[in-house]
Amino acid sequence: MDAISVIRTKRDRGELTPEQIDWVIDAYTRGEVADEQMSALAMAILLNGMNRTEIARWTAAMIGSGERMDFSSLSRPTADKHSTGGVGDKITLPLAPLVAACGAAVPQLSGRGLGHTGGTLDKLESIPGWRALLSNEEMLRVLDTTGAVICAAGDGLAPADKKLYALRDVTGTVEAIPLIASSIMSKKIAEGTGSLVLDVKVGTGAFMKNIEDARELASTMVGLGTDHGVKTVALLTDMSTPLGLTAGNALEVRESVEVLAGGGPADVVELTIALAREMLDAAGIKDADPAKALADGSAMDVWRRMIAAQGGDPDAALPVAREQHVITAPASGVLTRLDAYEVGVAAWRLGAGRARKEDPVQAGAGVELHAKPGDEVTAGAPLMTLHTDTPEKFDYALQSLEGSFDIAAPGASYEATPVVLERIA
Amino acid sequence: MDAISVIRTKRDRGELTPEQIDWVIDAYTRGEVADEQMSALAMAILLNGMNRTEIARWTAAMIGSGERMDFSSLSRPTADKHSTGGVGDKITLPLAPLVAACGAAVPQLSGRGLGHTGGTLDKLESIPGWRALLSNEEMLRVLDTTGAVICAAGDGLAPADKKLYALRDVTGTVEAIPLIASSIMSKKIAEGTGSLVLDVKVGTGAFMKNIEDARELASTMVGLGTDHGVKTVALLTDMSTPLGLTAGNALEVRESVEVLAGGGPADVVELTIALAREMLDAAGIKDADPAKALADGSAMDVWRRMIAAQGGDPDAALPVAREQHVITAPASGVLTRLDAYEVGVAAWRLGAGRARKEDPVQAGAGVELHAKPGDEVTAGAPLMTLHTDTPEKFDYALQSLEGSFDIAAPGASYEATPVVLERIA
Repeated sequence: MDAISVIRTKRDRGELTPEQIDWVIDAYTRGEVADEQMSALAMAILLNGMNRTEIARWTAAMIGSGERMDFSSLSRPTADKHSTGGVGDKITLPLAPLVAACGAAVPQLSGRGLGHTGGTLDKLESIPGWRALLSNEEMLRVLDTTGAVICAAGDGLAPADKKLYALRDVTGTVEAIPLIASSIMSKKIAEGTGSLVLDVKVGTGAFMKNIEDARELASTMVGLGTDHGVKTVALLTDMSTPLGLTAGNALEVRESVEVLAGGGPADVVELTIALAREMLDAAGIKDADPAKALADGSAMDVWRRMIAAQGGDPDAALPVAREQHVITAPASGVLTRLDAYEVGVAAWRLGAGRARKEDPVQAGAGVELHAKPGDEVTAGAPLMTLHTDTPEKFDYALQSLEGSFDIAAPGASYEATPVVLERIA
Repeated sequence: MDAISVIRTKRDRGELTPEQIDWVIDAYTRGEVADEQMSALAMAILLNGMNRTEIARWTAAMIGSGERMDFSSLSRPTADKHSTGGVGDKITLPLAPLVAACGAAVPQLSGRGLGHTGGTLDKLESIPGWRALLSNEEMLRVLDTTGAVICAAGDGLAPADKKLYALRDVTGTVEAIPLIASSIMSKKIAEGTGSLVLDVKVGTGAFMKNIEDARELASTMVGLGTDHGVKTVALLTDMSTPLGLTAGNALEVRESVEVLAGGGPADVVELTIALAREMLDAAGIKDADPAKALADGSAMDVWRRMIAAQGGDPDAALPVAREQHVITAPASGVLTRLDAYEVGVAAWRLGAGRARKEDPVQAGAGVELHAKPGDEVTAGAPLMTLHTDTPEKFDYALQSLEGSFDIAAPGASYEATPVVLERIA
């Protein structure tokens, strides 16, 4: 077996054999297959595709490159959620304690933001004292005692994926559905959850810009999960406009706490409850009522215990950015469009995100929205507030927001896009 | 400008801009674009192609990555030949002195063998004392005093191509016509020849297995040469069976000397004269008669002077392999097929070629043929003789030769393939 023959097989539109896939993933993890060989193979896969059999084997080989976690000692069924990433997507924060409050165990291994999309760990790290890095034993203990844990994936989980993801990021080979699906699912299956709900975002602020690609990615991942004995369901959800009214780290934590307190923006509440119902259903918990668990404070109780168990102070004041800049509505009328991608880029430029993996993020930076599509706005009234510790970045963020919204005449009709577009099981 | 945006342009079937091409070639030569980024781009080019404008700019950028030689001080017009590589293709050896004997200056920068194809420099190094590495000044002096020089290309010529070629070799991206064409032509144009004849091989033993691909490669290269002011012509020639009766280093030198002495196999003589006529015509030399220059010994005189000028002894005995193994014809009849690729692989395995760039070659190793397609053979009479210093390799070479030939009933009709298939100008 050698790298060139594997590359040639895919380059010439052939099907990779199970032996070729097992060998190339293992040899790449060991460093025998070089980065320049794997990137050529990734580009060939991006352009020529992989069929279901190949994707399944590729995923299994990535799982096999590292350890698998085991939650069978827990007394509750496990349920996990994965979002493909968006702008203002703080759903994991209220969702994990909510589902735990309804009886499931929620082992939520999460990531950091890169580019214009935020990262769950970056958001939670704005809570004073909170730690993302836990040992496997600590993770199990938090999960067992509070019902939910949100933390970073350990180095032992799918190391082949870790290496390949970093390579794809610099070689223009991120946007390959077989590679995206196998990357997400190898981590989730290795993590050992019993059931999984996928939130596949569609729209300008998402990775998948159109519904066809999102559908293909979702059904590929559902198939992979099912084949590995994980009950998997996907919701395709709208990411043409930001979720909720905030994009940024501490800003999103504050909004999540509002949701856990029974308030918060309607779209965030709707999606949180929709995903909670799917997770509980997938975990086999029939009689739970997530809306009630938000209203009666039981989800908030789990949140407070979970944050405290990871060193955080749930009562501490959240960081606030040093400088604010308000954008006012240039005309009165109906806000008909507010672009998720451009708001995400603005939040990123203000300091909420990072340009390179090793950069720090600002806890207080981001964009606060004062209106959402469908709302009436008044000329001169605040439309958005930008937050940053580095006010010299305002101009750069404002550039991204030019042309990011449309205002129609007062009283103009507006047809709202549903939050949940489709369900794939 | 950044590598990922260049990769994405080609990945998404776009046309690379002149600025993108200039930047990526320069940044790759400087090491700012990494190997894993260039290999992803090479794979995207292989699968999505480049148009004539892109190939022309890519070639110009590779020429611009290094120095250009200048032969304008010579009193004679320059003519060069390039072969895309085959089995038993020793044509450069008799051709360069022959064309010099007819009045042109022949600056023949050549390469080493890799894989199943032989290399001109490896062949000449079997002559005791002969040196392939010359300084630019030495090269010009040999060319000026003898009319011909065959040597290695200096490091200053198209360094981007040198780096990219080595990368393509290990990433399954060799077989891209735009990259093959720009690689060959950047070196030949940087070398500074006034005219160029391309010998594009077609058949099992060649890089291009079918005539359509060979035609596309040839016309791409002719266009590139012409655009850069180099009078360029291509012949498509047959490589379904080895050229001549030998494949190996010293074996091919011996056969080349036979041709220079007025003898040698008919196909080698025919192709040598056809290419000489094209080179002389391209160089504007009208009245020369290459057949006469072979017959009257004037080509041999140039050969002897050229070999001696590079330290070689034209009268020294050539190395002979320590062991021989004879394959006899299993039946009497007409030899109707003798596969170039399989003979090339056998010669390679016997020690005539190398597996990695840094390996040495055996001067005496190779395959000697006792019959060519169209010849009558007799059961039990020698068909091929294998030569090697490492007789433990006989079995491995014999494996390659199983099924390499067909013998039809005695008196069966046989239609010969012409040596020159097409001419593209």
